Amino acid sequence: MHVVVVYDTAQERNPRILRTCRRYLHHVQRSVFEGQLSPAQLRRFQADVNELIDHSSDHVIVYTLPPGTQLVRHTLGSDKPAPSDIL
Amino acid sequence: MHVVVVYDTAQERNPRILRTCRRYLHHVQRSVFEGQLSPAQLRRFQADVNELIDHSSDHVIVYTLPPGTQLVRHTLGSDKPAPSDIL
Repeated sequence: MHVVVVYDTAQERNPRILRTCRRYLHHVQRSVFEGQLSPAQLRRFQADVNELIDHSSDHVIVYTLPPGTQLVRHTLGSDKPAPSDIL
Repeated sequence: MHVVVVYDTAQERNPRILRTCRRYLHHVQRSVFEGQLSPAQLRRFQADVNELIDHSSDHVIVYTLPPGTQLVRHTLGSDKPAPSDIL
């Protein structure tokens, strides 16, 4: 299924959440990742994220779309790569 | 149609993009908005955003889903309101 992840985590945890997201998904914008995951991969991804975030202050949204759903993406502004793709 | 907007803009433009997004959508996370827009509203929103961003450095993604599409949202971590809802 298609997955979009957006996160707002404390700065000290950003590198770890970034690495976790990159293991599963593509970086499309600062704090935004996208990709195709199986239900099992999605469960593992969510378990990994749950382990590393601080549940009292961090916030992560995982949007999922059923297979075959058409998600249209309009991009406004710069076409520069996401920050981690430059490194 | 259902719309999800994520933005990464320079700090000095954040208040204006925030205000523009709030005129059309609900604030669900820092730099993330959601809502239902008609095609005409979506065009106006995109035109408003296009006018205020710096196209050489800011980046805005507008995801749209056809009416009736089921977008599932899993939230991990804090349930605190989005930053602007506290102000």
